[in-house]
Amino acid sequence: MPDHIYKKLEIVGSSPNGLEEAVKNALARAKKTVRNMRWFEVTETRGWIEEGEVRDWQVTLKVGFTLEE
Amino acid sequence: MPDHIYKKLEIVGSSPNGLEEAVKNALARAKKTVRNMRWFEVTETRGWIEEGEVRDWQVTLKVGFTLEE
Amino acid sequence: MPDHIYKKLEIVGSSPNGLEEAVKNALARAKKTVRNMRWFEVTETRGWIEEGEVRDWQVTLKVGFTLEE
Amino acid sequence: MPDHIYKKLEIVGSSPNGLEEAVKNALARAKKTVRNMRWFEVTETRGWIEEGEVRDWQVTLKVGFTLEE
Amino acid sequence: MPDHIYKKLEIVGSSPNGLEEAVKNALARAKKTVRNMRWFEVTETRGWIEEGEVRDWQVTLKVGFTLEE
Amino acid sequence: MPDHIYKKLEIVGSSPNGLEEAVKNALARAKKTVRNMRWFEVTETRGWIEEGEVRDWQVTLKVGFTLEE
Amino acid sequence: MPDHIYKKLEIVGSSPNGLEEAVKNALARAKKTVRNMRWFEVTETRGWIEEGEVRDWQVTLKVGFTLEE
Amino acid sequence: MPDHIYKKLEIVGSSPNGLEEAVKNALARAKKTVRNMRWFEVTETRGWIEEGEVRDWQVTLKVGFTLEE
Amino acid sequence: MPDHIYKKLEIVGSSPNGLEEAVKNALARAKKTVRNMRWFEVTETRGWIEEGEVRDWQVTLKVGFTLEE
Amino acid sequence: MPDHIYKKLEIVGSSPNGLEEAVKNALARAKKTVRNMRWFEVTETRGWIEEGEVRDWQVTLKVGFTLEE
Amino acid sequence: MPDHIYKKLEIVGSSPNGLEEAVKNALARAKKTVRNMRWFEVTETRGWIEEGEVRDWQVTLKVGFTLEE
Amino acid sequence: MPDHIYKKLEIVGSSPNGLEEAVKNALARAKKTVRNMRWFEVTETRGWIEEGEVRDWQVTLKVGFTLEE
Repeated sequence: MPDHIYKKLEIVGSSPNGLEEAVKNALARAKKTVRNMRWFEVTETRGWIEEGEVRDWQVTLKVGFTLEE
Repeated sequence: MPDHIYKKLEIVGSSPNGLEEAVKNALARAKKTVRNMRWFEVTETRGWIEEGEVRDWQVTLKVGFTLEE
Repeated sequence: MPDHIYKKLEIVGSSPNGLEEAVKNALARAKKTVRNMRWFEVTETRGWIEEGEVRDWQVTLKVGFTLEE
Repeated sequence: MPDHIYKKLEIVGSSPNGLEEAVKNALARAKKTVRNMRWFEVTETRGWIEEGEVRDWQVTLKVGFTLEE
Repeated sequence: MPDHIYKKLEIVGSSPNGLEEAVKNALARAKKTVRNMRWFEVTETRGWIEEGEVRDWQVTLKVGFTLEE
Repeated sequence: MPDHIYKKLEIVGSSPNGLEEAVKNALARAKKTVRNMRWFEVTETRGWIEEGEVRDWQVTLKVGFTLEE
Repeated sequence: MPDHIYKKLEIVGSSPNGLEEAVKNALARAKKTVRNMRWFEVTETRGWIEEGEVRDWQVTLKVGFTLEE
Repeated sequence: MPDHIYKKLEIVGSSPNGLEEAVKNALARAKKTVRNMRWFEVTETRGWIEEGEVRDWQVTLKVGFTLEE
Repeated sequence: MPDHIYKKLEIVGSSPNGLEEAVKNALARAKKTVRNMRWFEVTETRGWIEEGEVRDWQVTLKVGFTLEE
Repeated sequence: MPDHIYKKLEIVGSSPNGLEEAVKNALARAKKTVRNMRWFEVTETRGWIEEGEVRDWQVTLKVGFTLEE
Repeated sequence: MPDHIYKKLEIVGSSPNGLEEAVKNALARAKKTVRNMRWFEVTETRGWIEEGEVRDWQVTLKVGFTLEE
Repeated sequence: MPDHIYKKLEIVGSSPNGLEEAVKNALARAKKTVRNMRWFEVTETRGWIEEGEVRDWQVTLKVGFTLEE
């Protein structure tokens, strides 16, 4: 019976345009090597500042994906 | 003398378009049954992934509202 | 030898338009008196509600900046 | 469009027989007044001791359920 | 056999006179609609300042009460 | 008037058979030297693995007991 | 050379009259068997409710005391 | 448009007489150099013990104040 | 000299039958690709509800295993 | 069958020379009255400052030791 | 445009000689299979005790490294 | 009567040589502008990696100092 087992990765995405795009970029990269991603959890939101302005948002997320049998 | 008393609800809003809209959707629904909402606190940010992309943002928030006398 | 030392400030930015703009507003104000800001960490996300809608996002952030020798 | 909104309750179930049954008891009681329960999160596990033995397990859980439109 | 089930509410009491009275005010209000309150847990202590002095203490508490069969 | 005072111990019980039995074992041992135990709080759940299977569950618990006058 | 070593106890004091007196009661009891207490840290504030009013405040504190050589 | 920006200070007040007075003392001192204080958040409650009795309560609080334009 | 180095994985096991079996299932799956697993730490316990009953327990655990030289 | 039971103590070691020596000092003192110490966990690292320099490191650790049958 | 994406590993290094060397050992081992490591975060500091003395420091760290395009 | 009031700063010291020296460097810099520093609390330990080795330890600490009357 299919009791699913998942694994969680921790990745950090970045973007100059904001939190949502940083997450999007992280997933776009993870997708290249990870199949069956199911959910993410944001665990940290930070950013780099340059000349008093946000140069890059940095969002840490845990990504859960199904482990195939 | 009016020492206000508040109650806090915990609700989860979702939206394919991002964090702000997930909060907005949660409040729009809560407004139907709760009066006098005053503030919210984001306690968790997660989301569901489909085909390697964010299908839905899910934001958990506590909402404080005034209890009427 | 340049072992950098940083100081962290804790500030709260607000904006009716969302989380990113609240951070931007906080940094714009901090920039007037603080030089060499390097990074920020979001530590709290809240907001004020009026008539059942978000009137203001409030984002608390720690800002790290280099202390000059 | 069906962007689901959920509400979370916090309840405490108890049982002399262990953690799983305490959760089961809590849900059995909640089911009487709450429809559409979707998930639970265990937030605290405690118990009462009598004569040096566990008299009752007490499990605190948050229960998420769908708010109907 | 009476394995008790409890529910927890989260409320915020306020008072210009201090922490204990803020809790007392919160319970006095809750008592109007909630029966069988058993315990409380203080989860946050804050306050509003006016002219450099405490205008109001604000205490957030979780209140546990027995759910009747 | 009997305002009770309690002390808390932190102990770790273990068992190959699961969480409940690990707690039971911990209390059975504590009972030899501690009287008037009233409650426990689970603070950590871990275990040792051998050959890819759980060899031992390890549960850390705080135990509250009444201090006699 | 006097590099002090301390031990920490965790105790729970209670009082119908408030937080400060609960701490005072806890220390008065601890003093009977512990010498050289130096500081305390409040780690939890709870209470029991009866008839909708606080029957007892319960304050958990860690107490640090010097271990004699 | 007046999107307020706040700064948070972390201060520690002390008093032999209890938690509320420790907070009051901290604010009285802060008021000498900080204008426009709006709120405080208690983050830690400790104290020093002498001869088995509380010599001083020590309350750590974060104080939020408006940054003027 | 054998100063061991370990790596930690984060996995999620599920089972309709309870917490212990969810952990067991997670380890059974992990064993297929990971050698030398030594210990686990439970970091989250949740579950899915269907028709008011627990359909699946979901336990998140970190698993430590020895990295071979 | 030897399902081990452990107890945890919380002690604070100090040293002018650093974190490792503060831990060493704490264990050297604990060893006088506690047998069968197995592991420690650092839970807090602080220190006292004098004339702008570290006078003493203070490390809080929990120490686990086997309870004999 | 190079919006960097990072992945985080969680590893545990050990050493009889102290915290810094435990970190060094962990990185030396990780370097064999991971390229482009950028930063680490210490998340836990523990150790094993033998005959009342530290036999091994154990430091858990998260290591961030750049994911290549 | 001298009920002391303290303020806390948050600073980050760095050093290629380890945790203790990073703290020392932070205090040496803070001393230039802050008088009457009394204690510090380590709140975060991180570092930068270069070529698989620690290039810099980064220690975040809160520093408490007496506010003069």
